[in-house]
Amino acid sequence: MANIQVGIIGAGRIAYVHANNIVRNIPFADVKAISDPYLTDKAREWIADLGIQTVTDDYQALLKDPEIQAIIICSPTNLHAQMIRESVQAGKDVFCEKPMDLASAEIRKTLDVIKASGKKVQVGFNRRFDHNFAALQEAVATKKIGDLHLVRITSRDPSPPPVSYVKVSGGLFKDMTIHDFDMVRFLTGSEVEEIFAYGAVLVDSAIGEAGDIDTAVISMKMKNGSIAYIDNSREAVYGYDQRAEVFGSAGAMETQNDKPNTAVFSGKDGVTGEKPMYFFLERYNDAFTVEMKAFLEAIRDDKDVPVGGIDGLYSVLIAEAALESMKSGKSVKVNY
Amino acid sequence: MANIQVGIIGAGRIAYVHANNIVRNIPFADVKAISDPYLTDKAREWIADLGIQTVTDDYQALLKDPEIQAIIICSPTNLHAQMIRESVQAGKDVFCEKPMDLASAEIRKTLDVIKASGKKVQVGFNRRFDHNFAALQEAVATKKIGDLHLVRITSRDPSPPPVSYVKVSGGLFKDMTIHDFDMVRFLTGSEVEEIFAYGAVLVDSAIGEAGDIDTAVISMKMKNGSIAYIDNSREAVYGYDQRAEVFGSAGAMETQNDKPNTAVFSGKDGVTGEKPMYFFLERYNDAFTVEMKAFLEAIRDDKDVPVGGIDGLYSVLIAEAALESMKSGKSVKVNY
Amino acid sequence: MANIQVGIIGAGRIAYVHANNIVRNIPFADVKAISDPYLTDKAREWIADLGIQTVTDDYQALLKDPEIQAIIICSPTNLHAQMIRESVQAGKDVFCEKPMDLASAEIRKTLDVIKASGKKVQVGFNRRFDHNFAALQEAVATKKIGDLHLVRITSRDPSPPPVSYVKVSGGLFKDMTIHDFDMVRFLTGSEVEEIFAYGAVLVDSAIGEAGDIDTAVISMKMKNGSIAYIDNSREAVYGYDQRAEVFGSAGAMETQNDKPNTAVFSGKDGVTGEKPMYFFLERYNDAFTVEMKAFLEAIRDDKDVPVGGIDGLYSVLIAEAALESMKSGKSVKVNY
Amino acid sequence: MANIQVGIIGAGRIAYVHANNIVRNIPFADVKAISDPYLTDKAREWIADLGIQTVTDDYQALLKDPEIQAIIICSPTNLHAQMIRESVQAGKDVFCEKPMDLASAEIRKTLDVIKASGKKVQVGFNRRFDHNFAALQEAVATKKIGDLHLVRITSRDPSPPPVSYVKVSGGLFKDMTIHDFDMVRFLTGSEVEEIFAYGAVLVDSAIGEAGDIDTAVISMKMKNGSIAYIDNSREAVYGYDQRAEVFGSAGAMETQNDKPNTAVFSGKDGVTGEKPMYFFLERYNDAFTVEMKAFLEAIRDDKDVPVGGIDGLYSVLIAEAALESMKSGKSVKVNY
Repeated sequence: MANIQVGIIGAGRIAYVHANNIVRNIPFADVKAISDPYLTDKAREWIADLGIQTVTDDYQALLKDPEIQAIIICSPTNLHAQMIRESVQAGKDVFCEKPMDLASAEIRKTLDVIKASGKKVQVGFNRRFDHNFAALQEAVATKKIGDLHLVRITSRDPSPPPVSYVKVSGGLFKDMTIHDFDMVRFLTGSEVEEIFAYGAVLVDSAIGEAGDIDTAVISMKMKNGSIAYIDNSREAVYGYDQRAEVFGSAGAMETQNDKPNTAVFSGKDGVTGEKPMYFFLERYNDAFTVEMKAFLEAIRDDKDVPVGGIDGLYSVLIAEAALESMKSGKSVKVNY
Repeated sequence: MANIQVGIIGAGRIAYVHANNIVRNIPFADVKAISDPYLTDKAREWIADLGIQTVTDDYQALLKDPEIQAIIICSPTNLHAQMIRESVQAGKDVFCEKPMDLASAEIRKTLDVIKASGKKVQVGFNRRFDHNFAALQEAVATKKIGDLHLVRITSRDPSPPPVSYVKVSGGLFKDMTIHDFDMVRFLTGSEVEEIFAYGAVLVDSAIGEAGDIDTAVISMKMKNGSIAYIDNSREAVYGYDQRAEVFGSAGAMETQNDKPNTAVFSGKDGVTGEKPMYFFLERYNDAFTVEMKAFLEAIRDDKDVPVGGIDGLYSVLIAEAALESMKSGKSVKVNY
Repeated sequence: MANIQVGIIGAGRIAYVHANNIVRNIPFADVKAISDPYLTDKAREWIADLGIQTVTDDYQALLKDPEIQAIIICSPTNLHAQMIRESVQAGKDVFCEKPMDLASAEIRKTLDVIKASGKKVQVGFNRRFDHNFAALQEAVATKKIGDLHLVRITSRDPSPPPVSYVKVSGGLFKDMTIHDFDMVRFLTGSEVEEIFAYGAVLVDSAIGEAGDIDTAVISMKMKNGSIAYIDNSREAVYGYDQRAEVFGSAGAMETQNDKPNTAVFSGKDGVTGEKPMYFFLERYNDAFTVEMKAFLEAIRDDKDVPVGGIDGLYSVLIAEAALESMKSGKSVKVNY
Repeated sequence: MANIQVGIIGAGRIAYVHANNIVRNIPFADVKAISDPYLTDKAREWIADLGIQTVTDDYQALLKDPEIQAIIICSPTNLHAQMIRESVQAGKDVFCEKPMDLASAEIRKTLDVIKASGKKVQVGFNRRFDHNFAALQEAVATKKIGDLHLVRITSRDPSPPPVSYVKVSGGLFKDMTIHDFDMVRFLTGSEVEEIFAYGAVLVDSAIGEAGDIDTAVISMKMKNGSIAYIDNSREAVYGYDQRAEVFGSAGAMETQNDKPNTAVFSGKDGVTGEKPMYFFLERYNDAFTVEMKAFLEAIRDDKDVPVGGIDGLYSVLIAEAALESMKSGKSVKVNY
């Protein structure tokens, strides 16, 4: 059976991650082409290192290539929805980075197009493929912890993005918390019924001036009766803080941050271990591979993708409700 | 200098804890008398074991005894406020178990009486004297974690109280979360500005039929800008879960549960350590001693008590706002 | 039943620990008298604080007091054996700090006298009463770890004693490792068959000039077939390091150091927790109480003491064999 | 620059590990050919999957191929030395699995041939490339722990090999402990001066009947004055136990076992986390890649290999001394 031919739109950092994973770790797929209108020298270098033959500034060339079966969209967020629609209409299966779009209306429209096309679309919620979160999800699904009562997600970035990015990011809830909203759905196996959010500008006042927040605590009533809550910060000086806990009638399961090694130094000033891995590229290194393999296996074996367009929509709907709650000071029902 | 003479009202479990601590661990104070209208055989036994001479069924006898300088109130909650007032008016310093009363109006009235009396009144927020929480509080106060951004409190009981108790308890927020509300104030060194609460009945439907909840997630905006949040459950099958975390601009500090020993068994089925200490008598064993010593030292040295009547009032005001929030689905400002 | 009357010989630091524990925590015993020929001001103070009535410079006064039933020997090591003999011959039960004597011949002679007297003698191997070591011992005794294969003891002091003390200490094996030798016997429930030791002077060359070592690794073949090993250092800059592990056919159990609290700080430079408790007074604080209670209960209930003269002898015999091994470079059989 | 062409002798489990790592993770090298006289179906499958073109039953074909620059020897131990000699004499650089041979005399002879050839030979001490051990080594080399005093290595396999293998393995010290001997050299940066070993048959009497041991405790005096010790067992039912500790004048550094994830379950029966990774293929998965990359980079950049023939020799010399010690009951000097 011939390898799946993949085209990647965009040649930024995350495009490299996916390209590298396919070339190195997924024997049954090849990266045939990459498109980017503004190729950096660094991108040219890794594209060459990975032996990718075709480089173009026009993503339409990828859509027109009949050998390319799968498109990976790593472009800026505002292009995601349109590119998904064009790709599926061109007969391609699609992997798209999150969020699908900043506006839920645009995503709903895209879902209709996807449905009509019959093609597969996977959204890049990479954390679902992390070993730690997978252990929690299994503990809930198998009832190891009994009936689920509480879910806690601690999710803090090591440092805030530039304010220029913050301005076009869609805001903390759609840019950062969206991963946590998806994680709540993944861990609970249920949907958010209503949501409440407190936000604050504590890390950098420039973020506030840009109309966004950098710190938040969000709580959710789930349809299965459990309560979930998330805390977010744009800056944890000790690194990327990605922990979670599920608690139920038969016990609790909690995960800690992954670290570069287990070494602990006992000295005059205390007992000190490593900081968490720095950011998502380090922490979710393996998860990115598992995620991409799952997408390409779904194509190869004609199975459902593990994270679909509906997951892309719901996470944005939740984010919109969170924003409304923060502004109104009220618990807000998510409007599915 | 003569030992401080103490009278204890009530001879239940917590009265024993305080009596035992004074007799065994506080050389500069004696328990002179205990009153309880319904003395159990068990109580008679420990009173005798501790060598306490005077036992009476009438607490007024303690108030009238001119040698007794300090009164410890371990009676049912509905008697607390009145007994505090009578005690200070009789010229006694008072240690009273939490909450001071289920109604904030009654506490306000009591604070007026205390103020007029000039006597000391300490409220039994024992957790402030725990080694783990003290480390967190110090990390905030000394700015070891920088400016405070987030406070998390995980507070779960090992098993729910009888429904008969639930009915007169004042509800989860005034009975159980009240410790956590006080802890938020202690850790942040700030006051709750507004509060939001989700509650649920997940542990036992009988608790719901009694008009209460058994599970809650509560978030708070603090006057210093930080955000605090609490999760509560009436039943953690693995024991008393009492953890907290403070997070700020220079890092985070987190505490774990205390355990009976550090032994960890590695066997065919995993790597297993001890469960947390079962409940508050075990976990806060040392804290109860430190707490009582602080109270009696404040008398001996004529210092301020570390936890006063205002702390008793504010925790109840926060609980009342939490209840209103849960019912209204809105963020509620605390009415100081 | 009247309280057991105790006399304490010596008024140093460990005498204070025992006196305080009896006065504060053991309701069925009283410290009636203390003897010390060179009382410090500090000793006078705590003796007064504890309300101990009789202070003398002559320990014979204690032996002659017919009301005193139990003698606690906290004098210098070179006086232990003689004082034990005199005490039991005066009809007293005895608790004696370790080691019973630096010479096994002297201990054998003392055991004969004890046997003839019919009195109880407990030796101060306090670590047997520690919660962590007790968990390990139980895991071996109950076969939770299956058949025992390996025992590891890590035992390091926070700082070396003065060289003046080193010179009269009997050497590392009899002064420090003796606790570990006893622990090997306690954990294995077996006896040392042969022993091998490497020693070194790495902490302080003055210790070497005094004829002693400050670092050692010792291995032992036990009569039950298992192998035990110990590592020792006179100076762990991070505090008192007291860990152990038992390993067998069904798994392993390991203990960690106790710490003042569970708080862990995550900052720019790593993730840092507290150091172990500083030294034996802090770490074995509870164990000293349990130990003394066990001794006094053995008297009260006329039971066997949990650690007897034979344990005092065997630990010294093992130390002597270790010394011989270190000097000869050969495995040495213990001569029971 | 053309990729380095590699030939692999042997197609067993470890050959697969190296072949897979080169194909997937080392862009500057290719596996050109594999030889094995007894190819299994499974081997045929992975060789095909990895796209390796040439398969032969005669390793001489690899040596004769002028395009092949590097030979990886994964044959049975008794063939290692001869194949190394033939390979270097054929002008190839060589990576050889440990041990180089069971007899030190044979290794000495091989070292002479290597020297005469001027070719590079790396020995497969994979643990040197593990993240945890690397952290310890760095802590010693940078004096983070001050002057080195003690080194502890805990090294236990999850289950014993078949007795048929035990019989030809060269015994525990040359088959299993050899990794630990090399680790002692790596961590200390020093050489073993003398060694003492206790061994026992506690896991399986059949191992004893085959003339070997399955449990050992070994101590070593190092030339730099420090003392190292190792404990070994052929069967830890909880999995592959690979921990170590270095201790010095400024503190200690200790590593723990790697685990599949950080999830910890708190339930009625305790607080339970994952077992260590099962065995060397899982635990040292990354280390095998780093190791092979280091070898191939040494070729590419004409640098010294990080683990050379002398390391292969010394580990066997130490093992021979350990065996002599176990048999004689004496400390034995290593004869370099």
